Amino acid sequence: MSTGSILILPGDGIGPEVMAQVRRIIDWYGAKRGLSFDVSEDLVGGAAYDAHGVPLADETMARAQEADAVLLGAVGGPKYDDLDFSVKPERGLLRLRKEMDLYANLRPAQCFDALADFSSLKRDVVAGLDIMIVRELTSGVYFGEPRGIFTEGNERVGINTQRYTESEIARVARSAFELARKRGGKVCSMEKANVMESGILWREVVQKVHDEEYPDVELSHMYADAGAMQLTRWPKQFDVIVTDNLFGDLLSDVAAMLTGSLGMLPSASLGAPAANGRPKALYEPVHGSAPDIAGQGKANPIACILSFAMALRYSFDEGVEADRLEAAVEKVLADGVRTPDLLGEEGTDPVTTEGMGDAILKAL
Amino acid sequence: MSTGSILILPGDGIGPEVMAQVRRIIDWYGAKRGLSFDVSEDLVGGAAYDAHGVPLADETMARAQEADAVLLGAVGGPKYDDLDFSVKPERGLLRLRKEMDLYANLRPAQCFDALADFSSLKRDVVAGLDIMIVRELTSGVYFGEPRGIFTEGNERVGINTQRYTESEIARVARSAFELARKRGGKVCSMEKANVMESGILWREVVQKVHDEEYPDVELSHMYADAGAMQLTRWPKQFDVIVTDNLFGDLLSDVAAMLTGSLGMLPSASLGAPAANGRPKALYEPVHGSAPDIAGQGKANPIACILSFAMALRYSFDEGVEADRLEAAVEKVLADGVRTPDLLGEEGTDPVTTEGMGDAILKAL
Ligand SMILES: CC(C)[C@H](C(=O)O)[C@@H](O)C(=O)O
Ligand SMILES: CC(C)[C@H](C(=O)O)[C@@H](O)C(=O)O
Repeated sequence: MSTGSILILPGDGIGPEVMAQVRRIIDWYGAKRGLSFDVSEDLVGGAAYDAHGVPLADETMARAQEADAVLLGAVGGPKYDDLDFSVKPERGLLRLRKEMDLYANLRPAQCFDALADFSSLKRDVVAGLDIMIVRELTSGVYFGEPRGIFTEGNERVGINTQRYTESEIARVARSAFELARKRGGKVCSMEKANVMESGILWREVVQKVHDEEYPDVELSHMYADAGAMQLTRWPKQFDVIVTDNLFGDLLSDVAAMLTGSLGMLPSASLGAPAANGRPKALYEPVHGSAPDIAGQGKANPIACILSFAMALRYSFDEGVEADRLEAAVEKVLADGVRTPDLLGEEGTDPVTTEGMGDAILKAL
Repeated sequence: MSTGSILILPGDGIGPEVMAQVRRIIDWYGAKRGLSFDVSEDLVGGAAYDAHGVPLADETMARAQEADAVLLGAVGGPKYDDLDFSVKPERGLLRLRKEMDLYANLRPAQCFDALADFSSLKRDVVAGLDIMIVRELTSGVYFGEPRGIFTEGNERVGINTQRYTESEIARVARSAFELARKRGGKVCSMEKANVMESGILWREVVQKVHDEEYPDVELSHMYADAGAMQLTRWPKQFDVIVTDNLFGDLLSDVAAMLTGSLGMLPSASLGAPAANGRPKALYEPVHGSAPDIAGQGKANPIACILSFAMALRYSFDEGVEADRLEAAVEKVLADGVRTPDLLGEEGTDPVTTEGMGDAILKAL
C-alpha cells in the first residue's frame, strides 16, 4: 500500500538542486523503511512561467489539491523581476497557499548546537533556541481587496488592504494553541492593536479562543515592533508566536536569522484536516531561490530535507521517522560536514549539495 | 534674541522624569552658550486624557504647530489599555505626526563603543555601527481609509488600508537621499514589491527620484523581510534605510535593539521647511513609556537628551552645540556612568535618572 502521494515542485534557482537531494531521501525511506510514496513532479514560479506563461498552471494547481503533501523548492529570480505583477513567480506560490487554504504556516526557529557560533548573536542568546512561529498565510494584506495602483487626481496611488475576519483569526490561533500544548505551553500573539483596528480584532479573538478553548495554555500579547525587538534581545523567552501574514513574514525571517543559518530552516503550511484526516499541506525551505549560487553545487539542502521531515510528521503521521531524519542531520552537523554557507572563518573543506545529501544518507 | 521656541510634552510613564533632565540641559545652554529658548510645557497621551478626556487637546495641537521644535517624552501605559481606540494615548502622538505633516522620521541606530558589549549581538557585528533609518510617518496603513471593525454576514472583520501616493513616497525618498549625501552616500529602500502593489509603486518612485535628482547616491532595494534579516546578520552593510510607516516601525526597533540599549536612542520627525526655513519638527526618544519603572528614578534620560541634540542640529542649525552634547554623553559613558538599564552582569553602582543628568551637565 502507498504511504501517500507527494507532489514535488522544485521551482527556481537552487530549488531543483536541493530538491534532488530530497528525492534521494524519499527513495531511501521507500527502500529501507517501507514508506512508499507516489512521487510526481511539476513546475512552479519562473520555471512554470517559462513553460506556460503563468507561474502556476491550472493542472498543477489541481494536482496540488489532490496530493497528500506538496514539497516546494523556491521561486523567483532576477530574470523575472520585470514581469507583470500578476505573473511574477511569487504569484504561483501565493496561489498554492490561497487555493489550498493553507492558513497555518509553521516556521520553527531552532538553533543547532553545532552551528550556534554562526549566529551574529552571542552564543548564550541563541544556543538551544527552539521557538515556533505560526504565521497566518491565506489572508491579511497579501490577499485583501481593494489592491492595485490607481490614478487619483494627477498622481498614482498604491493601495493594499489588510483584512481579517474573526474566523480567520480563530482558526490560526487554534493551530498555535494546539502546538503549544505539545511544546512549552506558551503562546505569544503579536499585532499592532495600538494603531490598527485589524490588530484590535486579532487580539480580542485570540484572547477569546484562549479563554474558551485553551485556558491551560499561557497566553501573552505583544505589539509586533516590541516583538521584533524582543526576538533580537532574548528570543528564548518565546515558545510559540502567532501572528498575521505580513508581520509573520518579517518576524519569522528575523527568527530564522537568529539561528545562524537560513539554509537550515524548514516550514510547513497546513490547512484544515480533510476527510481522510490529513490536512492539505505544503512544505518548503525558508530560504529563497538564491540565484547567485544556483547550479554551482553550493546550496545547502538541509532546509529542504528538514521540510520533508516536517511532511513525515504532519502529513504522514510518521513522527518516529521524522525524528530519525532530524537526528541524521544533527549527526552530520556534529561531525563537521559543512556546505559553504556553514563555513566560519576557519575554513574546513566544504562539501557540495550532493555531498551533504551523501552524508545524511550515510547517517540514516 | 530668542533662539527659538520649544514645546515640551512629557507625556506618560517615564516621560516626565527623563524630560526633567532635558530641561536642565536646555537651561545650561541658556546660561552657558547663549542659546535662549522659549520653553513651554503641555500634556499629551494618557496625561492629556486624564485632564481633558482626549489624548491631545486642540490648544496643544495649535501650540505644537507654532513651536519651532516639539520635544515629546513617551505616551501610553496599562492604565489606558481599555480606552476606546479613538482616545488611546497613541492617538495623541499620531495626531501630532499627521497634523504637523512630519513625514520623515529619522531614527539613527548608533552603537556607543562603551556599550557594545550590551548588545545581544557579537561585538564585531555591532561595534561602530552607525545607520540611519528614515521611516515615512504620516501615511501608509497607520492612516489609510477605510479602517475599522465591521460586520459582514455573521462575523466581524478588521480592516486597515495601506495607501501611498507618488508624492508621499517622493518626498521621504528625498529626505533619505539628502541624508545619505551627508553620510555614507548609500540608500537602501525596503518594501514588499513582490507581494504588494503599494510596494511596487514605492520602489518605482524611489528609483525615479534617485535617477532624476540623486544619481550620485548609491541606491539599492530590498524586500522588507530580507531587510529585517540582513539587519540582524550584518547591519554595517547599511548606511541610510528608507521605508514605509509600518515596516519602519518594526525595522527601526530591530535596529535599535542591535545597539544594545534602547534607552540610548533618539529620533527626529521632520516636515517640509516652513517659510522661516525651519521644518516642523518633533523629537522623541525611541523607547516607550516603560510604566514598570516609572517614578523610580531608574529611567535612562540619554535617549531624550540626544533627541534634544537632534533638535539643536535639525531645528536650530546648531550642529556644533549638538556635537558638544553628544560628546558629553559619550564621555559620561566612557567614564562608566550607568543607569540600571546599562548594567551588565558585573554590576557597577548605578546612578539615578537625575544622577545621569548631573554627570552629563558636568561633562558639558
Ligand atoms: C516569496 C514571498 C512571496 C514569500 C512571502 O512574502 O510570503 C516569502 O518571503 C516567504 O516568507 O515565504
Ligand atoms: C506608540 C506607537 C504609536 C508608535 C508607532 O507605532 O509608531 C511607536 O511604536 C513608535 O515607533 O514611535
